[in-house]
Amino acid sequence: MTLAGGGWPEGATCVALSGGVGGAKLALGLSHVVPPENLTIVANVGDDFEHLGLRICPDIDTLMYTLSGLADQERGWGLAGETWRCMEALGRLGGETWFNLGDADLATHLERSRRLHRGECLTEVTGALCRSLNVGPSILPATDDRLRTIVQTDRGPLGFQHYFVRERCVPEVTGFTFEGAETARLSAEVSKAMTDPRLAAVVICPSNPFISIDPILAVPGMRDALRAVSAPVIAVAPVVAGEAIKGPTAKMMQELGLPVDASTPALRYRDLLAGYVVDDADADLAPAIEGEGVAVLSTGTVMRSLEDRVRLARAVMDFALNLPRDVG
Amino acid sequence: MTLAGGGWPEGATCVALSGGVGGAKLALGLSHVVPPENLTIVANVGDDFEHLGLRICPDIDTLMYTLSGLADQERGWGLAGETWRCMEALGRLGGETWFNLGDADLATHLERSRRLHRGECLTEVTGALCRSLNVGPSILPATDDRLRTIVQTDRGPLGFQHYFVRERCVPEVTGFTFEGAETARLSAEVSKAMTDPRLAAVVICPSNPFISIDPILAVPGMRDALRAVSAPVIAVAPVVAGEAIKGPTAKMMQELGLPVDASTPALRYRDLLAGYVVDDADADLAPAIEGEGVAVLSTGTVMRSLEDRVRLARAVMDFALNLPRDVG
Repeated sequence: MTLAGGGWPEGATCVALSGGVGGAKLALGLSHVVPPENLTIVANVGDDFEHLGLRICPDIDTLMYTLSGLADQERGWGLAGETWRCMEALGRLGGETWFNLGDADLATHLERSRRLHRGECLTEVTGALCRSLNVGPSILPATDDRLRTIVQTDRGPLGFQHYFVRERCVPEVTGFTFEGAETARLSAEVSKAMTDPRLAAVVICPSNPFISIDPILAVPGMRDALRAVSAPVIAVAPVVAGEAIKGPTAKMMQELGLPVDASTPALRYRDLLAGYVVDDADADLAPAIEGEGVAVLSTGTVMRSLEDRVRLARAVMDFALNLPRDVG
Repeated sequence: MTLAGGGWPEGATCVALSGGVGGAKLALGLSHVVPPENLTIVANVGDDFEHLGLRICPDIDTLMYTLSGLADQERGWGLAGETWRCMEALGRLGGETWFNLGDADLATHLERSRRLHRGECLTEVTGALCRSLNVGPSILPATDDRLRTIVQTDRGPLGFQHYFVRERCVPEVTGFTFEGAETARLSAEVSKAMTDPRLAAVVICPSNPFISIDPILAVPGMRDALRAVSAPVIAVAPVVAGEAIKGPTAKMMQELGLPVDASTPALRYRDLLAGYVVDDADADLAPAIEGEGVAVLSTGTVMRSLEDRVRLARAVMDFALNLPRDVG
């Protein structure tokens, strides 16, 4: 089974695990390589929080906006052409404005909250929003249950958005906990995607391992599901030449006393991975990773343009489809 | 005690009962005649509703926006310079857009809902919002308890906003009920304002009697409080020459089989009123109203400009202060 010689193998499916911005770039690339109806993106919900009485799901929204073509490319989050009238007015009223919500983006949170309030689960709500925005692939929350990333820091535990947005990642990280993870359940939709006999590859997108991928893996059953798939599981390094493309990944590695390079995520997931994709700049890390039984592909992983996203997605899929099965 | 010869009597207070647009015009006029710290506006909450998970208080907001100078003068509701990005986006998501909420206005509902959710009562929340917007007079909800105007129609009972906005007042009205009124309590702040020994006048603003004033009077204790005040209670006709300045007042009078003229509100409130103010166009109605023991002033009551509002407020106060006490 190969991609190089032609298109995506007929009927084959692909599951991607993703956080926000970095992961969404590759997810967009994958949506140009895998037919939308065969592509499932499992989204991190550890960043979710309740704010201003609304349920905010930053990673789901970034994926949804990116895959619908509505995302702001330059700012890296939110909607293109966004306005901020509501937040300005909220500031005048003395309300909480540390988490910036655009006027059009607010509609997503209002509609999501309204639907959740009337009893729909997050999977259903996300599906409805995606249909309205003409998103082709399935975006599935890792769980419909409450799961919240808590960042342990030198200033005490902080909810993820408080750490990330309000405190601008300044506190020193000592660890992470995932509130609710013990009792969270994989959704039926995620389980179905992971056990689909047509599954040809699982891709762990280049997202922060600690705060985007670990909360997905923290859902009981997720690691077992990944170990059980016969399709290869491939991760793409979220770090290039010792620096994160975006966000606090490198800072966290340093504060946790881990090597600040692309080998750290590979070793973190080694029991799950058949293959790992590093940037050409990190090709020298390949022997150490391969020594752990994980095949390595080095290629250009920095995604500036849509062409970059599609090219990387194609390279990752080609790598995955040509790996021996049952290596993970 | 007279206004004509000088300013507002030192230390005297005034209470106004008001609905939305029409009432807010006179309330604004009153705020130019009565020192803000001596003016209390008791607002109808029968129009309030929960929408998109938010608590919307249309009459409180109209008063707040009008008295802060932020109201849109032409549209008659909402904020000047408002934008509608959130509603446009909500429409794309298939959400409920029949009740139009501006982007800046949304901040009011978000902040109100957040504060109510954490346990503040509506009186406290309204006070905080008014302070942020530099509103001088006190705007007090008639009650902190839930009270909802239900419009009985030929199509069955409708929540007020469903009748007013969604159905555009088309259904034929057969009556009104005020859900929750039996158990609603006057707030301590309203009781205090009504029993203030410095109270010099109570003004019932030119608001719709059925849906703006009646829901205030429906709060147990309100009618008794009005009967107990020694200050004169004065109402201003919301109908001029048989037509409502704004809204469905005349249509409702007709559907309820009541005379469609300015005498109807006067007769409706006659047990409470010492005086009634009609437009010069309705001076011929004075004898019938005076025959019920209610003094009548006829003057220009149509408020187009700020000058009109202040002039009418001054005329109403002058009328009130020169009426014999204990007539109500």
